[in-house]
Amino acid sequence: MKKLINSPDTVVADSLRGLAIAHRGLSVDVEQRVVVRRDAPVQGKVGILSGGGSGHEPLHVGYVGRGMLDAACPGEIFTSPSPHQILGATRRVDGGAGVLHIVKNYTGDVMNFEMAGDLARAEGIEVRAITVGDDIANDGLTTAGRRGVGATVLVEKICGAAAERHWPLDRIVELGNRVVDSARSMGIALTSCTVPAAGRPTFSLGEDEIEVGIGMHGEAGRFRQKLVPARELAGILLDRVLADMPLPAGERVLVFVNGMGATPLMELYIVLNEVAQAMDTRGLAISRTLTGSYMAALDMAGCSLTVLRLDDELIDLWDAPVSTPAMTWGMA
Amino acid sequence: MKKLINSPDTVVADSLRGLAIAHRGLSVDVEQRVVVRRDAPVQGKVGILSGGGSGHEPLHVGYVGRGMLDAACPGEIFTSPSPHQILGATRRVDGGAGVLHIVKNYTGDVMNFEMAGDLARAEGIEVRAITVGDDIANDGLTTAGRRGVGATVLVEKICGAAAERHWPLDRIVELGNRVVDSARSMGIALTSCTVPAAGRPTFSLGEDEIEVGIGMHGEAGRFRQKLVPARELAGILLDRVLADMPLPAGERVLVFVNGMGATPLMELYIVLNEVAQAMDTRGLAISRTLTGSYMAALDMAGCSLTVLRLDDELIDLWDAPVSTPAMTWGMA
Repeated sequence: MKKLINSPDTVVADSLRGLAIAHRGLSVDVEQRVVVRRDAPVQGKVGILSGGGSGHEPLHVGYVGRGMLDAACPGEIFTSPSPHQILGATRRVDGGAGVLHIVKNYTGDVMNFEMAGDLARAEGIEVRAITVGDDIANDGLTTAGRRGVGATVLVEKICGAAAERHWPLDRIVELGNRVVDSARSMGIALTSCTVPAAGRPTFSLGEDEIEVGIGMHGEAGRFRQKLVPARELAGILLDRVLADMPLPAGERVLVFVNGMGATPLMELYIVLNEVAQAMDTRGLAISRTLTGSYMAALDMAGCSLTVLRLDDELIDLWDAPVSTPAMTWGMA
Repeated sequence: MKKLINSPDTVVADSLRGLAIAHRGLSVDVEQRVVVRRDAPVQGKVGILSGGGSGHEPLHVGYVGRGMLDAACPGEIFTSPSPHQILGATRRVDGGAGVLHIVKNYTGDVMNFEMAGDLARAEGIEVRAITVGDDIANDGLTTAGRRGVGATVLVEKICGAAAERHWPLDRIVELGNRVVDSARSMGIALTSCTVPAAGRPTFSLGEDEIEVGIGMHGEAGRFRQKLVPARELAGILLDRVLADMPLPAGERVLVFVNGMGATPLMELYIVLNEVAQAMDTRGLAISRTLTGSYMAALDMAGCSLTVLRLDDELIDLWDAPVSTPAMTWGMA
């Protein structure tokens, strides 16, 4: 295992310490594992909270800031945050208008966020949750349903923008669920990731082999095949996404090409271009894009494609100012 | 070779097409290989132009925008842009106040930028150049002098800010040279990169081996050694940097921890934390930081450390608003 770490036991704490140094605008509680925007709780604003296993940086800690998350709870590598940890964060972002939990659909995450929600409600904090499940690769493979992957970033941005405008909690929940319903994702891996505590790759692939439908923790995909040119790969991902969510010609969409941690930006731009060409031939217009390693799987090489159906309201909220370590635009 | 590409022959053109789709605020001429900010030339403002081999994205194309570069000229992978290409870009960003070429110190780059500068001057455009050479690893190894690496990003940001304030060309040249003089870098590789046209890794390292003093194209480093914990690694890099540029206690610095393309953000935060601790024990204060894959070496795993000595003026220009695909803050 070749990693820039001190020890598998300290990766999360060490990286949170680095995060705090890199981004002074964040309040980082390394002990409690909670990252909060400095001005939280914002009175009268719904608090937006997310969290999940570490190893996906910048998700979620890098999205704390104005116009996105009020707080993030990083768990151990690929491990849910604890109910206690989530409860603590919920308290810190409650400005009297309630708190929204944005939860990726994994059994541990869902359970711990539910428990934390119950505890917070017992303290009189209004808590609602959105469960993100956009990965079309694992339909029917587990009883837990679709995993939450790339759409999580989009839900956090869009709900964050609505909260910044002081939308009420009910309306933000409805909005977030609409984003989840309108998004589909699928990913591929060129290599495995290596969990520090395991010390060796989670799986292995042949020299010319890729895994299609990979999860963001290295979960098995739908199938393996030979590596093909980016053009063909983009077609494979897009066809599967569109088979699951048919889109009429003329539909406006956001295309999100995400790097899994070890794939350079140049390759992501190449994939974006091929997705755009493939959409064009299908009469679909790309209205907005996001390209980069916004949700990694440690040091996995590969990418995922997320397509989000847009409307005027979603476009407006997507374009709204945001100022976080990993996503910033439109804000002075 | 496992890459998300169509063919080694089309990587630069394909990725520029993707760049254009991802960032509508840029004017991307795929044919001429020139990326220009949409409002160029800005009348009365010095045009800031950089360029170099592709494969380092987001450098330079991702830094085109308000407060940084007016244009970038991407060459083929790890290959200098042509004089003709640079000349074309120079013309496009000349707003009557002259054009600054920011050149990384590699023989081909220096030669082609010089030639383009001569041609532009023959057309009556005032052109000056800054040569960036901050890599302390290759002292005396070549007659060309120190290679330009991480400091390039800092020079582009700081000179870009000064140009946005309509500083005259002479003063920006002086400023840029001061940044170069005040910056030192050193990098390490955990793995080689693979140049698409070569199809195989440039060099190979043992399972527990790293290369210290690596160049951003996979040039040989100073020495190889066993992979050590991040704490020790940070010490090795920082000690070499400080040996070359001694800093009195109390000095304010910018620390830039750069990922080489395949190193996830989490690990860069861990390195940043260790550099910060090591600086603290030496009485040095980190005033500003930059952490991320801002200058890649294709798919190399590893990182580089750049330290820039700051003063009030440099801090003010660093903090100034910037709005580019890969670096944005403070701008509405």
